[in-house]
Amino acid sequence: MFDSLELDHVIDKATFDAEAPKLRGALLDVQFDLLDSKEFPVIVLLSGANVLGRAAAMKRLYGWLDSRHLRGFALKVPSDEESQRPRMWRFWRALPPKGRIGLFLGSWYELPAAAYFLGQISHADFKVRIQEICRFEQMLANEGALLLKFMFFLPKKDELEQSKRLAKDPTVAWKVGDEERDIVKHFVKRYEDAMRTIEELVQETSTGHGPWIGLPSRDPRYRDFTIGTTLAEAIRERLAYPAKQVVTAAPPRKTKIEGPTILNTLDLGQALERDVYRSRLKKAQSRLTRRTHSKKFEKRALVVVFEGNDAAGKGGSIRRVIQALDPRMLRVIPIAAPSDEEKSQPYLWRFWRHVPGRGEVAIFDRSWYGRVLVERIEGFASREDWMRAYGEIRDFEAELCHHGIIVQKFWLAIDKKEQLRRFKEREKVGFKRYKITEEDWRNRKKWDAYADAVCDMVDRTSTTEAPWTLVEANDKYFARIKVLETLTKRLKDEL
Amino acid sequence: MFDSLELDHVIDKATFDAEAPKLRGALLDVQFDLLDSKEFPVIVLLSGANVLGRAAAMKRLYGWLDSRHLRGFALKVPSDEESQRPRMWRFWRALPPKGRIGLFLGSWYELPAAAYFLGQISHADFKVRIQEICRFEQMLANEGALLLKFMFFLPKKDELEQSKRLAKDPTVAWKVGDEERDIVKHFVKRYEDAMRTIEELVQETSTGHGPWIGLPSRDPRYRDFTIGTTLAEAIRERLAYPAKQVVTAAPPRKTKIEGPTILNTLDLGQALERDVYRSRLKKAQSRLTRRTHSKKFEKRALVVVFEGNDAAGKGGSIRRVIQALDPRMLRVIPIAAPSDEEKSQPYLWRFWRHVPGRGEVAIFDRSWYGRVLVERIEGFASREDWMRAYGEIRDFEAELCHHGIIVQKFWLAIDKKEQLRRFKEREKVGFKRYKITEEDWRNRKKWDAYADAVCDMVDRTSTTEAPWTLVEANDKYFARIKVLETLTKRLKDEL
Repeated sequence: MFDSLELDHVIDKATFDAEAPKLRGALLDVQFDLLDSKEFPVIVLLSGANVLGRAAAMKRLYGWLDSRHLRGFALKVPSDEESQRPRMWRFWRALPPKGRIGLFLGSWYELPAAAYFLGQISHADFKVRIQEICRFEQMLANEGALLLKFMFFLPKKDELEQSKRLAKDPTVAWKVGDEERDIVKHFVKRYEDAMRTIEELVQETSTGHGPWIGLPSRDPRYRDFTIGTTLAEAIRERLAYPAKQVVTAAPPRKTKIEGPTILNTLDLGQALERDVYRSRLKKAQSRLTRRTHSKKFEKRALVVVFEGNDAAGKGGSIRRVIQALDPRMLRVIPIAAPSDEEKSQPYLWRFWRHVPGRGEVAIFDRSWYGRVLVERIEGFASREDWMRAYGEIRDFEAELCHHGIIVQKFWLAIDKKEQLRRFKEREKVGFKRYKITEEDWRNRKKWDAYADAVCDMVDRTSTTEAPWTLVEANDKYFARIKVLETLTKRLKDEL
Repeated sequence: MFDSLELDHVIDKATFDAEAPKLRGALLDVQFDLLDSKEFPVIVLLSGANVLGRAAAMKRLYGWLDSRHLRGFALKVPSDEESQRPRMWRFWRALPPKGRIGLFLGSWYELPAAAYFLGQISHADFKVRIQEICRFEQMLANEGALLLKFMFFLPKKDELEQSKRLAKDPTVAWKVGDEERDIVKHFVKRYEDAMRTIEELVQETSTGHGPWIGLPSRDPRYRDFTIGTTLAEAIRERLAYPAKQVVTAAPPRKTKIEGPTILNTLDLGQALERDVYRSRLKKAQSRLTRRTHSKKFEKRALVVVFEGNDAAGKGGSIRRVIQALDPRMLRVIPIAAPSDEEKSQPYLWRFWRHVPGRGEVAIFDRSWYGRVLVERIEGFASREDWMRAYGEIRDFEAELCHHGIIVQKFWLAIDKKEQLRRFKEREKVGFKRYKITEEDWRNRKKWDAYADAVCDMVDRTSTTEAPWTLVEANDKYFARIKVLETLTKRLKDEL
């Protein structure tokens, strides 16, 4: 592919000097129009060969654009924080919000390509990594992002020369990280192999929504002028013609004839005596303490998700879990409406930021499942958005699991009558008043719609690695014990 | 996933008898509305467990819908014709046209799942096959198809019982093919393993545009009523809200400053003397004859694509290739505007039907590249459509290559002056008159747009396995020899 890259693309100085100021003006214009619109993020990847040229191009873009509104990322050896988390975490962190341009000097492509090229992973594993990338970029496109992927190209001769300079000239060498220098060395030695790897990568990941743009990069003027022009035109055009979405297929199955569901078949009458509760609580909590303090847990992490009907007792269950945990390893993340910053990012961004590091526990009081519950029911998300969310959520949780994070999800279920009793109690009892709002009463009216959504959610996202546990919660004692004992059992199985 | 499938879903006879006639009426209504609209095809997959139940459901749908407008497919041992072609060929063949419903009793899922489950392919290969399926379904969705994927589920006990009946009762056994019976036997023996494989498959392929619909299928009334209701509602809804497409990212790179291209750097002055031409022609043709008659070629096949400027001499080159081939193994496929039937299918459908069998040669006089040439330039395809076509075409050609088909593509290039000379000559010479039309003159006016499109096409679709060869064709002798010698060389390398 990209046969034309072999040609010698050059722009002479006089032409460049005449055209560059115009281009710069155009770039600033679109950058501010984009910023005002807050419509979509622009993600620019500077990938491929010519490690010095890529850095120089990035620098030029910083000069041409208003750098205050740019978001830069450079691929380096992962930080402590980064290496403790799933591999996509650092890219999620670096995503530009809507209205901004993100420049990626190296991206999610380099590491899989290098690993395969250096023989560290098999061809089949390489394909699997490519598939992960495709799903990630599909998600970005569905979220409206404009993707501009530049694949830098440099003739073998020039690449060799650059490699020598990198090895010898200290004034050049500092521009490249140790890890990258190592890749460049191998790259030059086995240039043809490297080209084949890149060709395969480009073939499999050049899509309609994220096509690779092959870039001859020997001549700096041609290189930067091309990037600048492409960037300005692509943003201008997307501002004029906003992205639309594919309408999805049928919603989950429907029969209209009432039948058994995973919710209406729960035995909500289950209850525990106070004495039994106390002794089992004590036992389960001390087990939880031991398991989370074990040597093995230091290399793992735990994510616990709590969802449930309003007034089902999430808070009480969470408190009993917390009692057993070391506060230094713990984070409780209450999920309410997204902040402005969070709204300007892809949906899962605000959960990625709370992914725990090694040996840590993150407890989510409500979670990413809001997308397929409240957002579905209130129409905050279109059906396209929540239908694709099931898959995106599975991908997200799979990444956590593959990284060794234990994911456990609880749905606390009460029946309609019990909810009414608790609502009324909350209105009466002083210190419980803050717990009941108009919204709770509104949600209650949509009881059946929520029931449908919960059934779909569990059906579509309860996986072997990240299962849902339905908790019969009409009796608070029973519910708390089921939560704690499920957790300790899960930790035992996993550790 | 699909925890709810374990529940006992049943519809009693009285309810069914009351509701079924209404459902049948609704189904016929949407079927005819769909037929009138000719808007999109509906693809219904009946997959998963319960091989007898799946067949029975298919039968019921034949009864409820108007069977004249249904397109049925049942997974069987591949026919002779089918086994000679890439694995997706038979599914392409079976796709329903726009306005019709296609029922797939078994589909592209069963074979990869069975192969992995029976240990015939590795886990990584299984993932790769899943990726192929995802790309195929993404293409179907982009082409507007409505995908309804039913995953049948049957409790272990019932599955065991069915398996026994299949083994013993001849009045039942004939309903299932030998191959399928074999899979069912293993499936029942290792039920839990099978469920894990299915879970993985469902997780990876349940997308926003093609979500799996888990179907408890023990009770025939529940089973068929659910399929029918889902089908009727999904079609009704899609008719009301037609699918839209995601706007794609930037077009190929642009600089606006004239530079070298793979076309304008061709040396079109190259020519051959008549004597040299004659002797090299004879030699190349006899080589081509020998290579296509070799033992090794019997297991392979050859696809040759001819594209080029108007009047570049495609016909003359094709004739010289044909002269060397056995007409029994040969098919020449001239590509003009698509027929009505072809228009009602996904874009690549009309090329899939001409994929050659073993030992055959297919010569395409123009090809699937029309999508990114004339359709791009004339606006017959939207940019979303032609941008994604590059990837779809690469996938298509990769499937051919992996099946052992040799793919060779020629672009015959002449310059503008030479084209003018030939146009004028054609107008003058009697027997050449049929070769020149108003359209040729119109196309000529768009010379530069075509040049851009050709450069993009070669950049984005010339791969190691299916390369483009640019042929300098101002001199016809030179062009024909380059075509023939490239072909014989390619055959030598491949065989």
